Amino acid sequence: MSTFGLSTAQRVLVVAPHPDDETLGCGGTIARLAAEGVDVHVLAVTVRAAVMWGGTSDPATRRDEFTNACAALGVTSSALAWIDETGELDITTRPRAVVELIERHEQASLAAVEPDALLIPAAGGFHQDHQVVHRAAFAAARVHARGSKHTPALVLGFRGVEDHWSAHEEPWRVHVNTSAHWYAKERALRCYISQLRGDGHPRAIEHIRTTDAATGGALGWHYAESFVPYRLAY
Amino acid sequence: MSTFGLSTAQRVLVVAPHPDDETLGCGGTIARLAAEGVDVHVLAVTVRAAVMWGGTSDPATRRDEFTNACAALGVTSSALAWIDETGELDITTRPRAVVELIERHEQASLAAVEPDALLIPAAGGFHQDHQVVHRAAFAAARVHARGSKHTPALVLGFRGVEDHWSAHEEPWRVHVNTSAHWYAKERALRCYISQLRGDGHPRAIEHIRTTDAATGGALGWHYAESFVPYRLAY
Amino acid sequence: MSTFGLSTAQRVLVVAPHPDDETLGCGGTIARLAAEGVDVHVLAVTVRAAVMWGGTSDPATRRDEFTNACAALGVTSSALAWIDETGELDITTRPRAVVELIERHEQASLAAVEPDALLIPAAGGFHQDHQVVHRAAFAAARVHARGSKHTPALVLGFRGVEDHWSAHEEPWRVHVNTSAHWYAKERALRCYISQLRGDGHPRAIEHIRTTDAATGGALGWHYAESFVPYRLAY
Amino acid sequence: MSTFGLSTAQRVLVVAPHPDDETLGCGGTIARLAAEGVDVHVLAVTVRAAVMWGGTSDPATRRDEFTNACAALGVTSSALAWIDETGELDITTRPRAVVELIERHEQASLAAVEPDALLIPAAGGFHQDHQVVHRAAFAAARVHARGSKHTPALVLGFRGVEDHWSAHEEPWRVHVNTSAHWYAKERALRCYISQLRGDGHPRAIEHIRTTDAATGGALGWHYAESFVPYRLAY
Amino acid sequence: MSTFGLSTAQRVLVVAPHPDDETLGCGGTIARLAAEGVDVHVLAVTVRAAVMWGGTSDPATRRDEFTNACAALGVTSSALAWIDETGELDITTRPRAVVELIERHEQASLAAVEPDALLIPAAGGFHQDHQVVHRAAFAAARVHARGSKHTPALVLGFRGVEDHWSAHEEPWRVHVNTSAHWYAKERALRCYISQLRGDGHPRAIEHIRTTDAATGGALGWHYAESFVPYRLAY
Amino acid sequence: MSTFGLSTAQRVLVVAPHPDDETLGCGGTIARLAAEGVDVHVLAVTVRAAVMWGGTSDPATRRDEFTNACAALGVTSSALAWIDETGELDITTRPRAVVELIERHEQASLAAVEPDALLIPAAGGFHQDHQVVHRAAFAAARVHARGSKHTPALVLGFRGVEDHWSAHEEPWRVHVNTSAHWYAKERALRCYISQLRGDGHPRAIEHIRTTDAATGGALGWHYAESFVPYRLAY
Repeated sequence: MSTFGLSTAQRVLVVAPHPDDETLGCGGTIARLAAEGVDVHVLAVTVRAAVMWGGTSDPATRRDEFTNACAALGVTSSALAWIDETGELDITTRPRAVVELIERHEQASLAAVEPDALLIPAAGGFHQDHQVVHRAAFAAARVHARGSKHTPALVLGFRGVEDHWSAHEEPWRVHVNTSAHWYAKERALRCYISQLRGDGHPRAIEHIRTTDAATGGALGWHYAESFVPYRLAY
Repeated sequence: MSTFGLSTAQRVLVVAPHPDDETLGCGGTIARLAAEGVDVHVLAVTVRAAVMWGGTSDPATRRDEFTNACAALGVTSSALAWIDETGELDITTRPRAVVELIERHEQASLAAVEPDALLIPAAGGFHQDHQVVHRAAFAAARVHARGSKHTPALVLGFRGVEDHWSAHEEPWRVHVNTSAHWYAKERALRCYISQLRGDGHPRAIEHIRTTDAATGGALGWHYAESFVPYRLAY
Repeated sequence: MSTFGLSTAQRVLVVAPHPDDETLGCGGTIARLAAEGVDVHVLAVTVRAAVMWGGTSDPATRRDEFTNACAALGVTSSALAWIDETGELDITTRPRAVVELIERHEQASLAAVEPDALLIPAAGGFHQDHQVVHRAAFAAARVHARGSKHTPALVLGFRGVEDHWSAHEEPWRVHVNTSAHWYAKERALRCYISQLRGDGHPRAIEHIRTTDAATGGALGWHYAESFVPYRLAY
Repeated sequence: MSTFGLSTAQRVLVVAPHPDDETLGCGGTIARLAAEGVDVHVLAVTVRAAVMWGGTSDPATRRDEFTNACAALGVTSSALAWIDETGELDITTRPRAVVELIERHEQASLAAVEPDALLIPAAGGFHQDHQVVHRAAFAAARVHARGSKHTPALVLGFRGVEDHWSAHEEPWRVHVNTSAHWYAKERALRCYISQLRGDGHPRAIEHIRTTDAATGGALGWHYAESFVPYRLAY
Repeated sequence: MSTFGLSTAQRVLVVAPHPDDETLGCGGTIARLAAEGVDVHVLAVTVRAAVMWGGTSDPATRRDEFTNACAALGVTSSALAWIDETGELDITTRPRAVVELIERHEQASLAAVEPDALLIPAAGGFHQDHQVVHRAAFAAARVHARGSKHTPALVLGFRGVEDHWSAHEEPWRVHVNTSAHWYAKERALRCYISQLRGDGHPRAIEHIRTTDAATGGALGWHYAESFVPYRLAY
Repeated sequence: MSTFGLSTAQRVLVVAPHPDDETLGCGGTIARLAAEGVDVHVLAVTVRAAVMWGGTSDPATRRDEFTNACAALGVTSSALAWIDETGELDITTRPRAVVELIERHEQASLAAVEPDALLIPAAGGFHQDHQVVHRAAFAAARVHARGSKHTPALVLGFRGVEDHWSAHEEPWRVHVNTSAHWYAKERALRCYISQLRGDGHPRAIEHIRTTDAATGGALGWHYAESFVPYRLAY
């Protein structure tokens, strides 16, 4: 079957809290969708200038990494909405603005893309930015009357790469065979030089590869990514 | 989108504990699948001779009703496995045999049909026969190695019509627009003269229509049926 | 049995995030309570001036609609707490103030009404205002020592009309037969001209009617509303 | 408020897997209901002759204990259905017979009592007899059409005294103030000489007293018992 | 076995939203850990000047009470981070700052203590300060790469004393026998003169004693405290 | 920390539905426990003569495999209780006998071993034998009074290797670093020639290795196994 049963020329919107979450969470699926002729658009909500443990976060660098990674995955368009040069923007205190962003961003939003499927961070991430983006995207995805705002038929949650140990149980019941697309995901991951980490870190490429291999092996595949179904409306 | 993303000539197996559960639980979806060119096969596990409240249960009558209802829905093949003339067969004490039936029945089983999608009773039904068939079908649907038993890509649970008040919370997150197929479902329901009930009963046609209308209305449709996703593997 | 087992002259407080949530969520139950001689008080938290999709939101209009709808349901008193003329008030960033409002509003609060039952938005609504009001009302409803703040014996959650497709599983195990009170609910709904929508929208009256009929049919009734029990203390 | 909102002359059926489960699980509530003029009927499913750890289980003794305990609680009628003299009766393999017992026992059943409320073992008990009685009672409690079998308006689950450490999370959200009825419960407990244990055992009276005091204290009461709501239909 | 399997000279960090939450939630466990030679450090996030129902909240008084209670429990070090003299500090709107506090407070934090076990408020507390501290501590406890931030092996949630009636089901599956340490807990509780309440209040010492006795009795002990396991990594 | 906080000379009982479940589910943990000087005893409930897909199940062969695998892991003693030469023994219909087996088997049971920790199949396995053994072991593990039956302090659930895609959400919150013990697990797995499968099967060694590596990587380790905590009593 095609990915999520989508056909050529249908459209998908991926909402990533920060640049790299789209690749870490569902890079293989994005690459497979693109290879199947589905248009994939990625909205990254924010990036901030900050000193990080084991690296730096320079907004310009991260924007370039994001652009390159999206290209490696075959994404149709990508947008990074809010660049926080001062490190003062705390999106957890601006939930309403995040809803409006996802609904109306001029390039990569529900209004601009009118996607058939919406991929959002799953509910149980430990990171509070992921939680606020999850809730905002979930609200934006509600059912609207015909003729008013766009309602995506499929709404699915992707996993944060650092959340595998986490305590939040959700139904991870949708699985995508990404065996033919691991290399595209790996290429995209390698674009995020500032964000990846070495052996022993959840964001090491080798750990991500092993995780996708374990997910795939449970289904009889080489690699896979899993999703939480929030609404699948056919 | 097509139903569950399935294409023409793909195959679906529906496992009903008793004749009528397939129509009550997912008759509109079966009719839509058939109309879309998907082959649908129905396995009804058992029917027993018994005096029922508000009706009778004669196995020959129920077999005829089942055949007619399946025809009204456009089903490709249907089979009723175990006819219990004495009323002594208690499938709740024979779980292993039910697994084998679903795996190997010669006409309507995983081995015979090699379905892309398997529709089974959801977990939370109050009826103990539904519970044992749920567990057996779930076990039969496990992932097998390539080259051994058939593994269906999609496994979904349908609702028992008398379970809407029930206490078991499950993720009813898959919805099928059956607006164009309510009349086929109604025709199939009318085949089950011995099983339907009048106004004020959960098995009254009017109640089923209202339930499907309410499910549909929440999605902006006229009629819909909802399902629990157990495994959706693309 | 009487509604929730309440007797004449007992008191109920309904906390609605916005005017209309009380009618959409539990209008039939409010009407039945009023008809049984129970005092019902409604606190609507906020309304803001805003352009909405498919309508407008003028605070003065919405206050009038609220007053009229409450009258149609037979409510004893109603209050609209915060009118946001600028559209800048975001209650999701003021959780503590919402707790204090529900505890101490001078007309419709726990302190003013000393209710036996408290009806609040259920936890799983997609709307972030509903979530913040749910959490605030739940906090306000905690058990206090005898002689200090009032503790309501019954705390129940009502559903948002746009939440039926939603992903949050909660125990909807309390059901109220509103068959004799649908017409009062319909009259109250018709007061909300600015908020209701036409066919195909979750806030169309016909959809609400169908939903209540489906809920009722599962119990053998014509119409019903369901609730999540948070605390029932007898 | 009255217990569960019930009025004088309404009826309650308590289904206990074995004699003593009714007292251990909800003895204070039974005593309070009886004191409020509600008719309470108790059906104990089975007792078997067996050597037990720390005691013996003689069916005749246990029948007498059951009769005396029910009298101490003010029960209207009590029945012990199946006395297993050989210790060979395993009700976990006879689920259908247990459903029929609860539906049709001639003295204490849904048909005989037509109860307004049905109290059953909660779902998460470790004891397999409790599990099978829970499932059977839950099935028997389903909604029937008007004019056919009796449907109890309220269905609640009581706790097994040895299940407090147990891993099964359920919504224990209904609480009954049994402060004035602890002594009746204690008198009933003392009837079960063969079943009670000394200090350090979950079935020691002092432990039961402490548990009820802790449950009550959380609500500002001296003693209380908690229940899982399965269906509360008003 | 030793508490949580910890050995002499290992370290524990307890994060309390306000002074007294550490004693109310896990005072017996802290006392036992200290008695076993484990170093226990307590970080209380905030206290504010406010008029409370049934008492007052003077920051200086509460700091002294906190210091004395920690001493009574045998705590190695304790710190009170934010004293809010105006009552205007609302930590629910500053989630990121709370994460940073728990990660980097100079005296009692993950960086300062490098604890083997982290005890945090459980998820389901009604109090919004407890919720924000839970989420912040959970985020701070995430798994870090070797050589970067400290990752505690054990992360457990303690209960709020006013949450026992609460609607949030979590797996309370870790139990600590505090029979030999009740008196230390009681001494610590008595330090909180401004916060404790009399009979009939959830924060009455007698109610806390009864609750711990009921928890213990279910395990065959005199007193115990229960915890939610979030991560136990050996 | 030591595994589960256990010390040298403490005892663990592992209950496996069939020979190989102990190695597939927690072979690395068993090997680590043995290496730490903990006594590990394994009870395999049953094995039956049957034709299997992709292999055969000869009881004598499987007994030998079991003995060899247990030796490879460093197990102190192992026992295979019921050899079913005819393939007719269906343990799902004999739940009470399985409880008694786990309580009283003369060599490897709660009575014989008096274990500090009990490892059992987790609740959500698809295999009905695993479900019945889970429930029986959980019942056997209940809390007994001091001086009567043995109560294990720790009760944990291990995963079935074919259950990773499965729909049952449980709190997998206990993790054991098995990095130094993967090779012992691999040696034990290789003893099960009749049960292992090749590439693309959930029971291929390479898939098991990948799964353990993914589980470990999420914690910053090379290999790990995860468990559900049912009771951890310190």
